[in-house]
Amino acid sequence: MIAPVALAQDLLRCNSVTPADGGAQGVLIQALEGLGFTVTRLRFGEIENFFAERPGQGAHLCFAGHTDVVPPGEGWAHDPFAATEQDGIIYGRGAVDMKGGIAAFVSAASQVPGHVSLLITGDEEGEAKDGTVKVLEWMAEHGKIPDFCVVGEPTCRGRVGDVVKVGRRGSMNARISVPGRQGHAAYPHLADNAVHKLIPLLNELIGKKLDEGTPFFEPSSLQITSVDVGNPATNVIPALATAKLNIRFNDLHSGASLTAYLREALTRHAPDATLEVSISGEAFLTQPGKEIGALTGAIERVTGVTPEQNTGGGTSDARFISRYCPVAEFGLVGATMHKVDEAVPVADLRQLTEVYKALIMAFCA
Amino acid sequence: MIAPVALAQDLLRCNSVTPADGGAQGVLIQALEGLGFTVTRLRFGEIENFFAERPGQGAHLCFAGHTDVVPPGEGWAHDPFAATEQDGIIYGRGAVDMKGGIAAFVSAASQVPGHVSLLITGDEEGEAKDGTVKVLEWMAEHGKIPDFCVVGEPTCRGRVGDVVKVGRRGSMNARISVPGRQGHAAYPHLADNAVHKLIPLLNELIGKKLDEGTPFFEPSSLQITSVDVGNPATNVIPALATAKLNIRFNDLHSGASLTAYLREALTRHAPDATLEVSISGEAFLTQPGKEIGALTGAIERVTGVTPEQNTGGGTSDARFISRYCPVAEFGLVGATMHKVDEAVPVADLRQLTEVYKALIMAFCA
Ligand SMILES: [Zn+2]
Ligand SMILES: [Zn+2]
Repeated sequence: MIAPVALAQDLLRCNSVTPADGGAQGVLIQALEGLGFTVTRLRFGEIENFFAERPGQGAHLCFAGHTDVVPPGEGWAHDPFAATEQDGIIYGRGAVDMKGGIAAFVSAASQVPGHVSLLITGDEEGEAKDGTVKVLEWMAEHGKIPDFCVVGEPTCRGRVGDVVKVGRRGSMNARISVPGRQGHAAYPHLADNAVHKLIPLLNELIGKKLDEGTPFFEPSSLQITSVDVGNPATNVIPALATAKLNIRFNDLHSGASLTAYLREALTRHAPDATLEVSISGEAFLTQPGKEIGALTGAIERVTGVTPEQNTGGGTSDARFISRYCPVAEFGLVGATMHKVDEAVPVADLRQLTEVYKALIMAFCA
Repeated sequence: MIAPVALAQDLLRCNSVTPADGGAQGVLIQALEGLGFTVTRLRFGEIENFFAERPGQGAHLCFAGHTDVVPPGEGWAHDPFAATEQDGIIYGRGAVDMKGGIAAFVSAASQVPGHVSLLITGDEEGEAKDGTVKVLEWMAEHGKIPDFCVVGEPTCRGRVGDVVKVGRRGSMNARISVPGRQGHAAYPHLADNAVHKLIPLLNELIGKKLDEGTPFFEPSSLQITSVDVGNPATNVIPALATAKLNIRFNDLHSGASLTAYLREALTRHAPDATLEVSISGEAFLTQPGKEIGALTGAIERVTGVTPEQNTGGGTSDARFISRYCPVAEFGLVGATMHKVDEAVPVADLRQLTEVYKALIMAFCA
């Protein structure tokens, strides 16, 4: 049996700021091979990743996680890579995001049988292009797509068990460029003010609600993040005006439907405008069913808490996994993630281990 | 008698790109002193100016003009400071704006009696702060404010006589800065998007008509000349958004009334926004009366054309003179002003001289 606290400390002592690995994956691989896992190292570009699988009975449950961490920054009271324990709390960069979660899952797998695997990447906090996306392609090619995947990100708000993420909003960026015809401000009829076409368009986009939200998603939100003309002259009507916007959208929309929505508005206000869009991720939702039920049931049995199922927050690698299989996110309390003196209580690590054990037993049974 | 063509050529041969004088005022002063004018040189800062007056019967008519010119730029077919005549046309920087007009007036004054004066500045095309404004202060101190002032700017559109300017729109610039609270685009409820307050304000300002125009003025016009946020991040809600606008306004408004108008709109849309205004000039109109009548009558008798009385175009020194006495602008055809190969037909110079003669006779009688 592997102890979650010791494994978490071993991992925290590796300096694995993206894209470095710092030996973290080697620590994990050694532990997993000792437990009978078959490990396939999958290096893409500069990034270390691996897939580890243990054959077993029942459905295939995969745990997805990242060993890389964000830079510690300045001002720590504890060495960010020493994994110091003090008063029942372990300090270190990655304690909750998410070396602690990985250690809990490996410990759980060491204690109960079942067909489980781990998808581990070193590129979640970076560009995420040589990480989970490519490991999933390899898994699909090799028939390793699981029946359910749990991502061990720190989803909880106040205590272990209070939040499960069952989907994420989509995110897209758009850039609108409206051309006009430059001229002197004293003779506006001889010019065509690009700003005067852009403003009514933006005003319409700000004023319209995209939707009212759904039982699982808050309303979609459109934010204009920049408007730029850069005209230094006070008496010149500008020839070009640009705007940038970001849309966080629920599963009532898609990148394509929102692109069409923007294009229709552009056509009415500024037919000669150009639109560039970049879709960071589509919205996804894992519908209620036996997968989510196994996870929430395990949480309730271990913690006594009924988790809120939500879809808030930024993007995670779950958006890639959702293209292949049902996925949910559940891990530690995120309060200190990406902050100075990131820390995890030993009690939380032990409780999360118990939840993952209960999940493996329920899902792989 | 002074010939208009020869004097115009003498002036055009002086390189008097603002703030240089190039000897131009010396040429004029010599001619005027020969005609019995008393000349007071009025140098302010680096700028040469003078006031010249000839006592005489009747009302006091002043001619205002500038000897400075804008830089010639590249691409001339004729030397811009040679005053070459070819096929009845004289080429040179300042030919119509406005050495030709000055020469025509001096020639007219040499041919008919009357109480006339000249207000000549070398700082019209530049900052205009050490020119007409300061000469007017001197004139007021010395009891030299005339009964009527004609500014010899090139007002005509297609032929000498077709346009008299009897006023000018005012112009003001404003800068609006809207503060917000920065935040992540995924959590708009935790931020306060400065752009989302600025856009509806600008949309309202664009959508409202300031007025419908008057018999002498076209409708006032508000142009947004720049909107700037400069936010490079796609996922950050910006904390500050600024806009610049220019208003060209008729005599239904003033700088103060428009400042109040903008402030009221700001208060509704973005109470914490700041507004900076800069009033370049108030609108003015010389009402119909014996002064304008003397000018338009002279034009009609000489050219057979009834001039259009308008208030269009950019600002000129007439805006300063209007604070002291009735003022109108009338001069050559402006088609080539500030352009390559600026030129004046000899016939136009002679016809303008005749108009100014008729004006002096009618007004000073
Ligand atoms: Zn993470
Ligand atoms: Zn001029």
